[in-house]
Amino acid sequence: MSALLMAIYLRGMTPAEIARWTAAMVGSGQRFDFTDLRRDGKPLALVDKHSTGGVGDKITIPLLPVVMACGGAVPQASGRGLGHTGGTLDKLEAIRGFSAELSKNQIRQQLCEQGAAIFAAGELAPADRKIYALRDVTATVGSLPLIASSVMSKKLAEGARALVLDVKVGRGAFLKTEPESRELAQTMVDLGNANGVPTRALLTDMNRPLGYAVGNAIEVAESLDVLAGGGPADVVALTLELATEMLAAAGIDGVDPADTLRDGSAMDRFRALIAAQGGDLSVALPVGAASETVTADRAGVLGDLDAMGVAMAAWRLGAGRASPGEPVQAGAGVRIHRRPGEPVAAGEAVFTLYTDTPERLRPALAELDGAWSVRDTAPPELPLVIDRLG
Amino acid sequence: MSALLMAIYLRGMTPAEIARWTAAMVGSGQRFDFTDLRRDGKPLALVDKHSTGGVGDKITIPLLPVVMACGGAVPQASGRGLGHTGGTLDKLEAIRGFSAELSKNQIRQQLCEQGAAIFAAGELAPADRKIYALRDVTATVGSLPLIASSVMSKKLAEGARALVLDVKVGRGAFLKTEPESRELAQTMVDLGNANGVPTRALLTDMNRPLGYAVGNAIEVAESLDVLAGGGPADVVALTLELATEMLAAAGIDGVDPADTLRDGSAMDRFRALIAAQGGDLSVALPVGAASETVTADRAGVLGDLDAMGVAMAAWRLGAGRASPGEPVQAGAGVRIHRRPGEPVAAGEAVFTLYTDTPERLRPALAELDGAWSVRDTAPPELPLVIDRLG
Repeated sequence: MSALLMAIYLRGMTPAEIARWTAAMVGSGQRFDFTDLRRDGKPLALVDKHSTGGVGDKITIPLLPVVMACGGAVPQASGRGLGHTGGTLDKLEAIRGFSAELSKNQIRQQLCEQGAAIFAAGELAPADRKIYALRDVTATVGSLPLIASSVMSKKLAEGARALVLDVKVGRGAFLKTEPESRELAQTMVDLGNANGVPTRALLTDMNRPLGYAVGNAIEVAESLDVLAGGGPADVVALTLELATEMLAAAGIDGVDPADTLRDGSAMDRFRALIAAQGGDLSVALPVGAASETVTADRAGVLGDLDAMGVAMAAWRLGAGRASPGEPVQAGAGVRIHRRPGEPVAAGEAVFTLYTDTPERLRPALAELDGAWSVRDTAPPELPLVIDRLG
Repeated sequence: MSALLMAIYLRGMTPAEIARWTAAMVGSGQRFDFTDLRRDGKPLALVDKHSTGGVGDKITIPLLPVVMACGGAVPQASGRGLGHTGGTLDKLEAIRGFSAELSKNQIRQQLCEQGAAIFAAGELAPADRKIYALRDVTATVGSLPLIASSVMSKKLAEGARALVLDVKVGRGAFLKTEPESRELAQTMVDLGNANGVPTRALLTDMNRPLGYAVGNAIEVAESLDVLAGGGPADVVALTLELATEMLAAAGIDGVDPADTLRDGSAMDRFRALIAAQGGDLSVALPVGAASETVTADRAGVLGDLDAMGVAMAAWRLGAGRASPGEPVQAGAGVRIHRRPGEPVAAGEAVFTLYTDTPERLRPALAELDGAWSVRDTAPPELPLVIDRLG
């Protein structure tokens, strides 16, 4: 298998090879089928979303309740973070009591009763876990067919009837260039469609972090701001873009997802979902006991902000892990006070870093060196959505 | 390691990479050093030969005693056959009592007293055995840098101070085309020279079998014919070509290797060497109990003879093995009665097949189909030595 992975890494795969390989990965475990489920006598509009992984990418957290409130049902097989990107499960586990260890029956029941279930993807396509462990030690993680089949094997097995992919492009993405990201997106769209799950993708910018919060609990808090009708403009915008795609993919029309943020229905669905999975939102979210503030040494506007530098800082603070199975700190992370183009006075805070382990502050600060600057004029705006595929 | 082997297979290696890789393989075990040994007060002229493997390639057997009789000392780390090519150890073990399991002290003593030692290469460059086992199951056996480093790691470790390589080209060779064989030869020559062991190579033809005997005991018998001053012209010629190269590489001049075949001195050295390693040449060499003769169905001259077809027939008869560690039949093999260009009458024998297991005759006969023909005019002569390198 190691030799085969290297051959795939160096030679690539034809579309037919990727399709067969992915089908074999799906077939290594059970494939969920929720098409028999009904709510109010009607089949569920089963739809899910996957992101290839970004920095400050908490979009799944506000997005699910928005789609639920609009009538979608989301079987969300979710993963943990690795390397510079965070994982939705790590973030949600910052909520006291929340658990993603759901049985198949619990998932079915929650889909009917709540309209969503967030569960650990570990049991789906179990070949992926073994293959990933080999990719990790054979330097073949960065292979497009292997990335595409890894993602899609789990998403094809989780029981969604339509998929929307958020494929990240840029410094903070797994694939840095647009052509690579575009090819990955097209490969995954083709894989979904070839396997009976209509799939579409957005290519979105990941040169700068999403929102003002990068970490675990800190991203849940920002997501709650969005669900309360506020929150950062880019997080709100991307949430609504993806919700619109998911609703269209699920065949739901006549609803405006933005209404669910304004009228509190998305927040209600989120609270009910978290409670159903054991989470207690009345307990304050954890914040790292040690902190450090980075200030501007001159006045001006914030220049570009390198998502990778911020991600590495959060990782150093304890928000992420270097290898599978490591614990993460719920309270670790980076609060961004100024985003590119926003004015800042000399001595004002640009970042606050949080961690439970003070010795992590210094290496985290070093990661931010060169990731930001104060200048006289605003840097160019970057479009959030670069393209749509599928 | 499996992933690395596949990367090497698909990408190749630079000369510097092959050199370091080979040095690491040599360093995985002990490297013999016989430069302190003296005979008649003089340092030994330590020289060895390696063949990349052919069909009917028993050349080592007459070659060693010729070089010994001319004053050379040969530390010959030798291997067993695998697939379609035979191994010198398999052939010599057809001699009752012969053993290549020599201790380092036995090798030293024999080099001084006999002028040669034939020993199993297993203890040298032990990484090679482990790597080969992985190459076998990862479909990376046919990688030029891996072949070159496998051969040269053992040859650099065995203690020769000069090397002559017989790199085969053609249907019966491991590499079929001249450019591939030439590149392999040059790579190995460079590896030897870079590691302080002056190395030269002959590119020789392996489209047709060498001599009239392909198997184990049957090739020892043919070698004894050569040492007795007779034997097939091609076997004698290649033996003397390689002896000339070895003597030159060892700095021995003023002797004619052909003299040692005429005056019986090579035969004497061979008998003494075999006796020193426990072999009893007074016991008749084994011959497979079952046999089958293939006859010409018309008169004419023998056309081309495909070395690979003959090799596969001998392999089917039990002379070779499919995987390391399998036993071989000492008495199995193919006797060739007519070589390309020789006249044959209708009904005359062209081949006799020998085996201890009669059910092997039919598949062996099938391998010979299409490997030979009778025609009206002689096929072109093929030059035995195609080129010299180094």
